[in-house]
Amino acid sequence: MHKVIIHEVGLRDGLQMESEPVPTITKEHWIDQLIEAGVDIIQLGSFVNPGKVPQMADTDDLFEIYNSPGKKQGNTLFSCLVLNEKGLERAMLCGAEMICMGFSASQTHSLKNTGMATEEAAARIINMAKRAIDAGKTVQASIQSAFGCGFEGDIEEDRVIGYAGQYIDAGVRQISLADTAGYANPLKVERMFSAIKKIDSTAGLACHFHNTYGMGLANCLAAMNTGVEYFETAFGGLGGCPFTNLPTGNVCTEDFVNMLQEMGLRTEINNDNIAGIAKYACGFFIKDVPGHLYKIGKIKH
Amino acid sequence: MHKVIIHEVGLRDGLQMESEPVPTITKEHWIDQLIEAGVDIIQLGSFVNPGKVPQMADTDDLFEIYNSPGKKQGNTLFSCLVLNEKGLERAMLCGAEMICMGFSASQTHSLKNTGMATEEAAARIINMAKRAIDAGKTVQASIQSAFGCGFEGDIEEDRVIGYAGQYIDAGVRQISLADTAGYANPLKVERMFSAIKKIDSTAGLACHFHNTYGMGLANCLAAMNTGVEYFETAFGGLGGCPFTNLPTGNVCTEDFVNMLQEMGLRTEINNDNIAGIAKYACGFFIKDVPGHLYKIGKIKH
Repeated sequence: MHKVIIHEVGLRDGLQMESEPVPTITKEHWIDQLIEAGVDIIQLGSFVNPGKVPQMADTDDLFEIYNSPGKKQGNTLFSCLVLNEKGLERAMLCGAEMICMGFSASQTHSLKNTGMATEEAAARIINMAKRAIDAGKTVQASIQSAFGCGFEGDIEEDRVIGYAGQYIDAGVRQISLADTAGYANPLKVERMFSAIKKIDSTAGLACHFHNTYGMGLANCLAAMNTGVEYFETAFGGLGGCPFTNLPTGNVCTEDFVNMLQEMGLRTEINNDNIAGIAKYACGFFIKDVPGHLYKIGKIKH
Repeated sequence: MHKVIIHEVGLRDGLQMESEPVPTITKEHWIDQLIEAGVDIIQLGSFVNPGKVPQMADTDDLFEIYNSPGKKQGNTLFSCLVLNEKGLERAMLCGAEMICMGFSASQTHSLKNTGMATEEAAARIINMAKRAIDAGKTVQASIQSAFGCGFEGDIEEDRVIGYAGQYIDAGVRQISLADTAGYANPLKVERMFSAIKKIDSTAGLACHFHNTYGMGLANCLAAMNTGVEYFETAFGGLGGCPFTNLPTGNVCTEDFVNMLQEMGLRTEINNDNIAGIAKYACGFFIKDVPGHLYKIGKIKH
């Protein structure tokens, strides 16, 4: 049936919006719990300017810890996000196996985020992707604001699909469409991923939805039905993007895994572990996080 | 494509859990807004003991108001819920056009709710359904806890489908499966409604989901894809069931309509009206209600 790979991005997209810095030892506890839960890919952080995003200052340290023989275990893959060449060099130095990068299809979002127009950012990211592929890395390249933009509104679908084609031409094997604003709907999800499959039926497809309008799991379902395999979600439904003007949590990992398990999929994942991190995060940030499962407890069978 | 009929149950399932009584004049304002929005069916209330559920004490009055020539307008249908023969008689007296009734597939839920075991409650409801059909009423008959029970856990699917068959044999043309606990998942939704269609491919199918685990819209999507036409939702995502031990809001009407409209469906509905009622309800109950749209505002195009 469906192949569903969980890519946990809570430590990156979940934390970058939080002002209270999470100590490395707490992140380590969360990562250990995620590994034990059986999550497939864990994004340890991003390689950005620690002065600008202090929450991500220990990404190099985390890679050092999880690449050490004592910690490296199981089949878990560790990913990172890089935004520019300098970040890519740091990621290579850290021995990151999977490197994620992307640009925004929205000119306004791209300018606010990177100071570059989309075309310039695209050219730069595509060059970085080639470098990382040449270095033997698993590269996931994404298009942000792929389903619409909080600043600009609609983003032409053909243009987004065109960027996916550029990635594929550059040798990228894993393409992610990121719904930065939470504007995606199931029909659009189906249409856009189908269009990418028409360009290359063997490309790995990844999605990154935000639950702004409560459609997160419906969009994941539509993506599953269209053959998307990689799902980027965050424990507790934490997160958002500092560069859009909308409050937007990620799809909640444990809520998504709960749906999967109720459908008979990925039943080997220990979802209690993930819900436990959401609870820990509530305590740590002294606030409710958006997820449902950790508040309600499991479905009775 | 999909035929999607909105059955607004906020005034009944949304309010029955709220202790602060909503004055009839406020309900009237909300109903007027829903009519103007173009909602297809509005459940005005239930015919229950006003001593036990004071929030529903004015259901007769509301029918009198909306059956009067000055108020009756457009194509809006007004429905009610009845729990027993006495309620059915009141509904008939009020001239209600559409009468909803049901029993729980869970013995524990049924006993707590009605003091009767499922089989006894089923026989009684089926008799009531026949009476209402004979009187020329549109009857929607439902099976509560159809996807599982907060007390008992799993409910045998074949048994639930069997009850649907009993309804169909009794002449009911509209069958609703109610997810009282919020335990449904997209695969189960697909499987169970498909099974009812196998019994009678022309039966009208209705669903009533709660968003307990965040799967509400994903379950609606699965229902749409299986040919379900009637969707029972509540403005603001208000509501729950006083007889299950889980905090469970209904699927939020304006969030569901937002998803539909983004998919190009039901674009004639004025969703601002519905989101406006959710905001009014927040003010009235002095609390946040679960819906997303009213907090965030519309998707930019």
